[in-house]
Amino acid sequence: MTRRRVVQVDLAERSYPIVLGHETLDEVGARIARCTGSSQAALVSVPPVNRRYGARVARSLRDAGLRVHRFEIPDGDAAKTLRQVAKLYDGFLERGLDRSSVVVALGGGMVGDLAGFAAATFLRGIQLVQVPTTLLAMVDAGVGGKVGVNLKQGKNLVGAFHQPRLVWIDVAVLRSLPRRLRAAGLAEVVKAGAIWDAAFFAELEGAGEKLLDVDPKLLVPILERACQIKAEVVSADEREAGVRMLLNFGHTLAHAVEALRRYRSILHGEAVAIGMVFAARRSEELGLAPAGTADRLQALLERLELPTRVPRFERRAYLRALAVDKKKRDAHVRFVVLRELGRAETRPLLPAEILPPARGRQGAGRGRR
Amino acid sequence: MTRRRVVQVDLAERSYPIVLGHETLDEVGARIARCTGSSQAALVSVPPVNRRYGARVARSLRDAGLRVHRFEIPDGDAAKTLRQVAKLYDGFLERGLDRSSVVVALGGGMVGDLAGFAAATFLRGIQLVQVPTTLLAMVDAGVGGKVGVNLKQGKNLVGAFHQPRLVWIDVAVLRSLPRRLRAAGLAEVVKAGAIWDAAFFAELEGAGEKLLDVDPKLLVPILERACQIKAEVVSADEREAGVRMLLNFGHTLAHAVEALRRYRSILHGEAVAIGMVFAARRSEELGLAPAGTADRLQALLERLELPTRVPRFERRAYLRALAVDKKKRDAHVRFVVLRELGRAETRPLLPAEILPPARGRQGAGRGRR
Repeated sequence: MTRRRVVQVDLAERSYPIVLGHETLDEVGARIARCTGSSQAALVSVPPVNRRYGARVARSLRDAGLRVHRFEIPDGDAAKTLRQVAKLYDGFLERGLDRSSVVVALGGGMVGDLAGFAAATFLRGIQLVQVPTTLLAMVDAGVGGKVGVNLKQGKNLVGAFHQPRLVWIDVAVLRSLPRRLRAAGLAEVVKAGAIWDAAFFAELEGAGEKLLDVDPKLLVPILERACQIKAEVVSADEREAGVRMLLNFGHTLAHAVEALRRYRSILHGEAVAIGMVFAARRSEELGLAPAGTADRLQALLERLELPTRVPRFERRAYLRALAVDKKKRDAHVRFVVLRELGRAETRPLLPAEILPPARGRQGAGRGRR
Repeated sequence: MTRRRVVQVDLAERSYPIVLGHETLDEVGARIARCTGSSQAALVSVPPVNRRYGARVARSLRDAGLRVHRFEIPDGDAAKTLRQVAKLYDGFLERGLDRSSVVVALGGGMVGDLAGFAAATFLRGIQLVQVPTTLLAMVDAGVGGKVGVNLKQGKNLVGAFHQPRLVWIDVAVLRSLPRRLRAAGLAEVVKAGAIWDAAFFAELEGAGEKLLDVDPKLLVPILERACQIKAEVVSADEREAGVRMLLNFGHTLAHAVEALRRYRSILHGEAVAIGMVFAARRSEELGLAPAGTADRLQALLERLELPTRVPRFERRAYLRALAVDKKKRDAHVRFVVLRELGRAETRPLLPAEILPPARGRQGAGRGRR
């Protein structure tokens, strides 16, 4: 058995643990009972995850003395809607959940976001535990407390900050995750290194494609460091406003790509990989990062089987999509640039500066998939 | 001109002012500009309030340099729905509001709750300013940061805590408020005295029916003290969990009454008046409050032309309505009782203990309207 690792996330209001391990799903109920003091749990999941792990988590909760109510929501980001949240409210009321109950989100980022937003707003907020089952959700959704849903106009336009009581990461569940989804999650791990920790980035380069196998001895410490970095960034933001924006590295273009693809045929992590290489290249062009930065980033992402080429759409369509992105302050978008691998900062740029006329066409042909 | 009064609400994250005065609506824009730093405001109101004050507030905001987008929502608690919130999201996006924008809620509690919930969740939370135009909203919605909407199953079942940047109270607007609505607002003022401040309660008894006139010299200090009490209670809750529950005095039964009346033909403050007398009488019956407490409370509320008699519905219907109330912890409801006028505490009671079989019928005949 791999040693259990704990990342403590320290926040002003309260802190909570991220517990990482291997084959630990049967123990989650006891820990939830201890962390929350709840007597009732709403276990929210999507069909494929529920089939595979729902009964185990439910049993673990019941063994710990909780009454368990199971809820299934449709899979896929297209179902991350207010309508689905409203259905959860109805279910919560029907089953008699109250303020002392806990919502357990079992699934990928979509489940965490949707069930998390329901938890954040039901009765003005009840307790939340995240049990992420994708690599992306493990490193991305675990820290920061961001929950929310999409509107037809764009992704995550409605939401809240709602810190979980506990994040429970069992890397064994990654074995049932398709290789493509594991790769997509690694994009966020690479991001953590690129914006914050050059040594960690080099460590990822050292491991390369081995990261795609589920080797707990390699993966648990890597995910631990990725979670730590996110926790450091989020904590730093309480002192230095805006540091947290660095986590959006690659995300400005990624959101535009996802919107233009209508959230189909591309995974969030894949869009982020494209967005990061694009942002690194813009950083070089703006004279902010040394030459070779983008190539090194692109090389690692390609070893992880991630796309890095900007999909071809009209430049006008990109500009419109960038303008709706919620990180803008008035007309400007706070765009995250690299100064070098391991160090990032934000720049207020107009959409037309992010995507200059020549660059749009040229850039689309430069990367490859 | 009456002297301007300011109640500073101190909260861990940040503090904000409640500014009270008379004929001050034209100055609100300058203060909002200073408090928020926003360049765009979404002014949200309901038709009757909008017709009377919307243009003045919008002009004041424009004079202070803000771009103003006006939104009208249907009046009445029945429109406090997720659907109306979703419409506001659409409008906010269409007009290009961003994270630095401010939502200005101009109206009664319903507007503050609905627009406040939209502000709390749009782009994961943007700034909020409350400009309450009913007496109830001035003393109730100003402090505490509670925002939210109703579900068909009950009132305020969905929501968030979202502190405003500023609360702007101009008592002159109360002149256009029907006398019945002014009375309903005074129920919450009486509540503040009953749970927290015996001297203030006596002061209210001294003023009696004069409180129903809009005399700024009398009313501004009274509202100031009522806001202060709520601020004290909310701040105390950060040290002593549960103190805030005292603000629910009278509300357990009030919510049931409102639900059974389907939120029609009864105002929130009227339901609270009924609930407070009911709770005071239960406090006496349980041997917690001295004899005469309920009579004294009832007498003051009747001088303020408020109903105090429990509407006749089946006891079973009341029990069902009490069981859905969100303040319960498992089967128990945290019911607020008086120990004397000026001092309250909570008791965990079962719905059947709140409304014992005999009491239901007896109590319904005791009060009068």
